[in-house]
Amino acid sequence: MRPSGRTSQQIRPVTITRNYTCHAEGSVLIEFGDTKVLCNASVTAGVPRFMKGKGQGWITAEYGMLPRATHTRSDREAARGKQGGRTMEIQRLIGRSLRAAVDLSAMGENTIVVDCDVIQADGGTRTAAITGACVALVDALNHMRKNGMIKVNPLKFMVAAISVGIYKGEPVADLDYPEDSAADTDMNVVMTDTGKIIEIQGTAEEEPFSFEEMNAMVELAKHAIRELNDHQQDALN
Amino acid sequence: MRPSGRTSQQIRPVTITRNYTCHAEGSVLIEFGDTKVLCNASVTAGVPRFMKGKGQGWITAEYGMLPRATHTRSDREAARGKQGGRTMEIQRLIGRSLRAAVDLSAMGENTIVVDCDVIQADGGTRTAAITGACVALVDALNHMRKNGMIKVNPLKFMVAAISVGIYKGEPVADLDYPEDSAADTDMNVVMTDTGKIIEIQGTAEEEPFSFEEMNAMVELAKHAIRELNDHQQDALN
Amino acid sequence: MRPSGRTSQQIRPVTITRNYTCHAEGSVLIEFGDTKVLCNASVTAGVPRFMKGKGQGWITAEYGMLPRATHTRSDREAARGKQGGRTMEIQRLIGRSLRAAVDLSAMGENTIVVDCDVIQADGGTRTAAITGACVALVDALNHMRKNGMIKVNPLKFMVAAISVGIYKGEPVADLDYPEDSAADTDMNVVMTDTGKIIEIQGTAEEEPFSFEEMNAMVELAKHAIRELNDHQQDALN
Amino acid sequence: MRPSGRTSQQIRPVTITRNYTCHAEGSVLIEFGDTKVLCNASVTAGVPRFMKGKGQGWITAEYGMLPRATHTRSDREAARGKQGGRTMEIQRLIGRSLRAAVDLSAMGENTIVVDCDVIQADGGTRTAAITGACVALVDALNHMRKNGMIKVNPLKFMVAAISVGIYKGEPVADLDYPEDSAADTDMNVVMTDTGKIIEIQGTAEEEPFSFEEMNAMVELAKHAIRELNDHQQDALN
Amino acid sequence: MRPSGRTSQQIRPVTITRNYTCHAEGSVLIEFGDTKVLCNASVTAGVPRFMKGKGQGWITAEYGMLPRATHTRSDREAARGKQGGRTMEIQRLIGRSLRAAVDLSAMGENTIVVDCDVIQADGGTRTAAITGACVALVDALNHMRKNGMIKVNPLKFMVAAISVGIYKGEPVADLDYPEDSAADTDMNVVMTDTGKIIEIQGTAEEEPFSFEEMNAMVELAKHAIRELNDHQQDALN
Amino acid sequence: MRPSGRTSQQIRPVTITRNYTCHAEGSVLIEFGDTKVLCNASVTAGVPRFMKGKGQGWITAEYGMLPRATHTRSDREAARGKQGGRTMEIQRLIGRSLRAAVDLSAMGENTIVVDCDVIQADGGTRTAAITGACVALVDALNHMRKNGMIKVNPLKFMVAAISVGIYKGEPVADLDYPEDSAADTDMNVVMTDTGKIIEIQGTAEEEPFSFEEMNAMVELAKHAIRELNDHQQDALN
Repeated sequence: MRPSGRTSQQIRPVTITRNYTCHAEGSVLIEFGDTKVLCNASVTAGVPRFMKGKGQGWITAEYGMLPRATHTRSDREAARGKQGGRTMEIQRLIGRSLRAAVDLSAMGENTIVVDCDVIQADGGTRTAAITGACVALVDALNHMRKNGMIKVNPLKFMVAAISVGIYKGEPVADLDYPEDSAADTDMNVVMTDTGKIIEIQGTAEEEPFSFEEMNAMVELAKHAIRELNDHQQDALN
Repeated sequence: MRPSGRTSQQIRPVTITRNYTCHAEGSVLIEFGDTKVLCNASVTAGVPRFMKGKGQGWITAEYGMLPRATHTRSDREAARGKQGGRTMEIQRLIGRSLRAAVDLSAMGENTIVVDCDVIQADGGTRTAAITGACVALVDALNHMRKNGMIKVNPLKFMVAAISVGIYKGEPVADLDYPEDSAADTDMNVVMTDTGKIIEIQGTAEEEPFSFEEMNAMVELAKHAIRELNDHQQDALN
Repeated sequence: MRPSGRTSQQIRPVTITRNYTCHAEGSVLIEFGDTKVLCNASVTAGVPRFMKGKGQGWITAEYGMLPRATHTRSDREAARGKQGGRTMEIQRLIGRSLRAAVDLSAMGENTIVVDCDVIQADGGTRTAAITGACVALVDALNHMRKNGMIKVNPLKFMVAAISVGIYKGEPVADLDYPEDSAADTDMNVVMTDTGKIIEIQGTAEEEPFSFEEMNAMVELAKHAIRELNDHQQDALN
Repeated sequence: MRPSGRTSQQIRPVTITRNYTCHAEGSVLIEFGDTKVLCNASVTAGVPRFMKGKGQGWITAEYGMLPRATHTRSDREAARGKQGGRTMEIQRLIGRSLRAAVDLSAMGENTIVVDCDVIQADGGTRTAAITGACVALVDALNHMRKNGMIKVNPLKFMVAAISVGIYKGEPVADLDYPEDSAADTDMNVVMTDTGKIIEIQGTAEEEPFSFEEMNAMVELAKHAIRELNDHQQDALN
Repeated sequence: MRPSGRTSQQIRPVTITRNYTCHAEGSVLIEFGDTKVLCNASVTAGVPRFMKGKGQGWITAEYGMLPRATHTRSDREAARGKQGGRTMEIQRLIGRSLRAAVDLSAMGENTIVVDCDVIQADGGTRTAAITGACVALVDALNHMRKNGMIKVNPLKFMVAAISVGIYKGEPVADLDYPEDSAADTDMNVVMTDTGKIIEIQGTAEEEPFSFEEMNAMVELAKHAIRELNDHQQDALN
Repeated sequence: MRPSGRTSQQIRPVTITRNYTCHAEGSVLIEFGDTKVLCNASVTAGVPRFMKGKGQGWITAEYGMLPRATHTRSDREAARGKQGGRTMEIQRLIGRSLRAAVDLSAMGENTIVVDCDVIQADGGTRTAAITGACVALVDALNHMRKNGMIKVNPLKFMVAAISVGIYKGEPVADLDYPEDSAADTDMNVVMTDTGKIIEIQGTAEEEPFSFEEMNAMVELAKHAIRELNDHQQDALN
């Protein structure tokens, strides 16, 4: 039924490549099938003004899409002079998800910025970004421990994310672009490796959905994220 | 337990005032307790460029907060020269929710813009905005029918929205500002008056939440939205 | 002769509602007939950089129009990414008028920002804004005295403003929108309650005007402003 | 009494140089003492969108100040990315003044943009700009007649402008920078060569002013503008 | 003498990977040692407004640097709201170089945009970008021929670029970052595979240079570009 | 052969007027034929943030073109809200050229900004700007010595610039607009009065150029710049 021939709960092949670029403290290329996102975590001493003097750290994320990551070229946001609403929405989601995974009070007044740049898009860029960004974050935190910037590991748990949806009436996991653009409902779920929810965002694109459908989608997400956690652990070992 | 003394499922007093201003085709002031949002629906002939030639209509929303709607003054977005990420996120949510309620293909190539401006804020401004905007939308659609711009009523169902959350370990409905700023989890639910979900957005601000907590929150939302639908009907009758 | 049936010197009904919203130190809704402007005065400690170290306070104003305050919807300035020339011109006028009313050297290094947001427009929004903003300013200054931020009342006099013009060859006071859009000449006058002029701005929209016409308009303004001063006092008592 | 030794009604030496640059259809350098403004009028076929199809022409103005036209360097507006409020206010004033002088319906659907750029500033830049811009406008209109773009001369009258003010308690004409920065009141008056008022803008910088003071200032303006009209005529002959 | 141990005329290892991403009509990853630039060429029907009606095509380029392509993170231009001067300078250079290589009049009214995004930077990003962009351009032109958008091959010659400089008093080719940041002089040369110059830009960072030094640098560039032409041909075969 | 009748090595008449405006520490109007650029050098204590604490000075430049400096009016950059790529490119070139001429470490933590504003354009505005800016810089440095801001003269040499190109197959010096817009190749050369190169930028507009052509152009530039150096010295004596 699915254009890719996958079963409804089957996610695309996942590849996580650490140290993809040489400068960032954490640098991860994550691939969900044809979706490829480069996640670079940068550590800097100090925190933004609104966090100063609290003795806590700060984690934030920025998201971008190369103009021709998609089927047709989209305008370069730097040239247009502003980030679009979709970009803002996504980078806020990534930032919240990563902050939820870390005990900021154990980070000292240091900042980690995770840049998630989409090299190639085929649906699910934000969930790939969160899943890869968490691995880059771990590398950046390890870098901080080696450099003596922090004493203990402030990571509370790993986070990963998957998109689920109702496609042709059936709940499916990890929608690719052909599915995403035709789905009735699209839901992004961010979870911890302890099986709890960090963020859930479900949108009825065409048809409102029922509680039963919601629960079916969440169930698919739970299984998929467990698989993603395994991929994260494999990459980190 | 709640600062306001409300029970966990009790929402704040709701007031819906139609024809609040005199120029807009639909003009509604909605109050959820001390939260007051003015929702003005404007009808114009024609659609934005990306919709031209499809024979369909378009509905969109813009959201703003008066600088001193809140406890401390925030910068005026027009003076800063851009809308913030939170504003973009909210106005996109309102727009999606309203579009889901209407059969765009029955609207002709006409546009409705709903401006949701927060006069006074005490938590829940986006859910009040959606609930009030839907009433303003009904008035705007009625205006179009009277003027012969449309033949049939393109409204598929009423939509309303409520925030729910985990406050001090308990699921509660319709969080006010003191609760919102201290809650572990904050979830916004948009539903139809036919009991289906349009949008669900849950965020763990402090602690990840379980599936049981999610379901408890959704249950509270379902009841609250039924009440809001009654308020909408009362206002329209 | 006037569309509203008013006599040439007759101003529209004036309503001044204090404490219109709950957060601002001064919050006034002022109505000149169908023109409704919300004036919120916000007190903050400190002054802008260019005033630092002078031992003086600062007062400034910002002006905005809700997109559908007018007959047809105008673009939201925050979405367009800049304030228009008309907005800038008006908020500079309001700021100058309020600063002229206050002994800044008796305010300490504190700032009052008055936000004037037009909820509904029917001509004369800038003059209503100044008249209402002065009442909000008084409430904000009283708040500062109660909180011990200032010792003496720095207010030198009340200010109020009215528009006058030549409509169908006759000088008239307090032009509403139908008159304003058809007037030959439009003049805004800001005066103190001691009968002196703070600001006068007259523009020949269609026909240049003579000194006699100027004097006739100023005379009308003097009387109208005396009435507005009474409304201000009534509201403050 | 005046820093420059001038009498109260004495304006600075005025020089008007036509054809100052070679490309513009009208190009005038005007000097009021040390204030030097280059006024270039550019003719183009067509009108802005909001004027299309009315069979009328359009005249507008833009104003700029070279960064080091003043005692201390101010930021370049192009580099800051926006025009300031003062710039907007002034260019709107120049545009209105010029439009009042011309019968737009006799201009055809053509546009004249007058760029007023301040090369050196010593007070009174906006009044010098209006006075010089009107001469450049005449040259541009003559160019249009020669080229057959218009048949009749659409100029209704010449306009000129002067600043007047209360300096050390005395009304004075044509304030230079030392006076302007110390004046109690500053008033700009734009008049026709038929002795009527196009625009009057008076601001109490320090002390509110009386009706008598206003009349004294206007009287000074009337005489000064008559002188400026003579300078304009001399330049045009 | 060189930090990398290279001889003065030795360039870094060059790798050119075609079809690096799947959507663009031409997609090339080019590596000059640790410098990695992704060059995506996008074909669209139509030309920008200023080229319309000339019966010619248009080629342009945009350049960007991922925020952590460099040793320390730089701000994201999309978030700052504008492209910096260096970015503009580089993308204009790339665009001019590519346009010089193509007979625009044989392209029909079609546009090719080449996006050059730096994934990792170690000096020489603009020269790598030009060299890779030309290969992507060839692929895009071939795509157009296969699709029947053009009949003949409008490519006049291949272009490639190299940086040369004076490092510790010696002329060297293909400066990496440690050399670039310490060089006295930096020169970028763009040449055709027919041995002619498209663009030469030499800057004395520290010490002015002599004609002899200029000629020595140009000589190095000539040899290096011949090598780059070979790499381009190998990649295309 | 040249439209102006000049010989191939003949530059246009050069005029350098010092103290052109009265406020700037250095103010030079430079004319290359009909090209007129006003170069104002402003001295301020302190340096930009990225230079603080190095005990060095800073020199930078800004470039602008009056909207009607050219044959047809171009948009005002301040009104469009950003500087174009060409403007950025030019002002960066001027800044680099001036910094190369000065020993920044002998300037103390002071800044000189040179504003180069084109009053009238006929080709070669950037080279005229550099040549005039250097004279304004000398005046500003002399002002600093008189005021005791610096002890020794930090100027290392004078810089001047000329454009050369291939016009109708022949190398020519100092292209005016008719030549510039038709030239095959355009090269700007910045040199010291000691005969060394600061910057060379050559662009093949139509046809790639050979090494021989490059050398012929550079040879022309060398002679022209020697002439310009004489004009600079004459102006300074």
